[in-house]
Amino acid sequence: MKFRRSERLIDMTNYLLEHPRELVPLTYFAEKYGSAKSSISEDLGIIKETFETRGIGILKTVPGAAGGVKFYVHVGQEEAAALIEELCNVFESPERLLPGGYLYLNDILGNPTIVRNVGRVIASAYAKADIDAVMTVATKGISIAYAVAGFLNVPVVIVRRDPKVTEGSTVSINYVSGSTKRIQTMVLSKRSLSEGARVLIVDDFMKAGGTINGMIDLLQEFNASVAGIAVLVESEETEERLVDDYLSLVRLSNVNVREKTISVSEGNFFSRIHFNNGSV
Amino acid sequence: MKFRRSERLIDMTNYLLEHPRELVPLTYFAEKYGSAKSSISEDLGIIKETFETRGIGILKTVPGAAGGVKFYVHVGQEEAAALIEELCNVFESPERLLPGGYLYLNDILGNPTIVRNVGRVIASAYAKADIDAVMTVATKGISIAYAVAGFLNVPVVIVRRDPKVTEGSTVSINYVSGSTKRIQTMVLSKRSLSEGARVLIVDDFMKAGGTINGMIDLLQEFNASVAGIAVLVESEETEERLVDDYLSLVRLSNVNVREKTISVSEGNFFSRIHFNNGSV
Repeated sequence: MKFRRSERLIDMTNYLLEHPRELVPLTYFAEKYGSAKSSISEDLGIIKETFETRGIGILKTVPGAAGGVKFYVHVGQEEAAALIEELCNVFESPERLLPGGYLYLNDILGNPTIVRNVGRVIASAYAKADIDAVMTVATKGISIAYAVAGFLNVPVVIVRRDPKVTEGSTVSINYVSGSTKRIQTMVLSKRSLSEGARVLIVDDFMKAGGTINGMIDLLQEFNASVAGIAVLVESEETEERLVDDYLSLVRLSNVNVREKTISVSEGNFFSRIHFNNGSV
Repeated sequence: MKFRRSERLIDMTNYLLEHPRELVPLTYFAEKYGSAKSSISEDLGIIKETFETRGIGILKTVPGAAGGVKFYVHVGQEEAAALIEELCNVFESPERLLPGGYLYLNDILGNPTIVRNVGRVIASAYAKADIDAVMTVATKGISIAYAVAGFLNVPVVIVRRDPKVTEGSTVSINYVSGSTKRIQTMVLSKRSLSEGARVLIVDDFMKAGGTINGMIDLLQEFNASVAGIAVLVESEETEERLVDDYLSLVRLSNVNVREKTISVSEGNFFSRIHFNNGSV
């Protein structure tokens, strides 16, 4: 079955979007469409240009016998700024403020479009990094973790507060919550991480950073390492921050639960990302 | 800025894939690309044909002044059968068996490709149904719920076992677990569902159906209704099933924890779906 160029372009676009960071040999497409490699090469040139012009992502050509193309998600500075501004506006609403200086985020974390865009922006920052898995802690960070993992094409590993039968054997650690100074526990299924894995930690909300610090400790138990830390929202704390090296999209400050006021500004994203190459 | 047809096809494909079940007016594309509506119409004809031939989905044209196109995810019988067979093979491994007849599923539920494909198959069954939200219970069903919701373009609502400060005010119900006959609690944030919402319940695993029954009860508290129930795995129970009307991709039977044996077969998917129109 022969394919016209227009059909190939549509089907290849869909395939590449669904297989980020995967090396696709030219022969794969050539055989799929019964086309010459030279035609496929031309098709990919058109897709590459359009992906870059339209801000969809980057298509990297790997030359040689074992070569092919790789699609990387990429979000430009303007698009990232627009998303972060949109998030700031949404977060500013005073009805979101909850006891203890937390924010109601369920509607945002449940919105597939927002979650997808947050995932794209975070994944874009780590698109070319060496990452084997995305880790988060149940429950609220899960949606963003999956969105990021989908764009990076790596599995998601979910840390829990309590062991469950469905986890199988688990490794557990105790950590001190940065805000409340209480001792807490987190567990991770033993089978969920392989030795030496490079892990991107993702969460929805960071105050002092105790939970994220706990995840870092947990990674050590698995002889795994931290490849990055990214949060949707960081809240300014009077106390010392336990984590230094992280990426945040939005920052809360001047949280006043009694007066129901809050200041929302962009996080450290733009000071951490070098936009000439779009990575951390 | 003028666009060539090839560029339009690539960019439109990306746009439609990212906006399922959304009515996109022809004028949107015509203005975006500075093209005549007749050219856009031809482009959409090519995309429609390719989407259908390559099993990407269905493009429905809505005629008239308020018209445009809508993209629906659609999985054909063959593709669904291949996925379900793959799942059966993965599930069969005896190391998955856990105490109580549960299965270790974390690796499957953490794999973005599998989760995406499971989400596509379930969403395809409900693509044309009137659904306002996808609901699941924390933690394990969340990944599939997000995948389904992404393809249906509706928000995800997450029921929890315990209230948390970040949920705001909650509504809680008690229910009887179908397997253990113990009284359990589930809570849902008050702001998370609007009155009259039509909700698709999604979960990873169903034994007797007590948890799903609990979610149905919870929906009543919100004056919301069940638009469908879909699970990845159902486990055959000797006891009476509490839920009748559901969709399952995989069925476990003859679970013998002592002997570490298990039978895995396809769920009720193919007996519930009419493949001439691909819907429940």
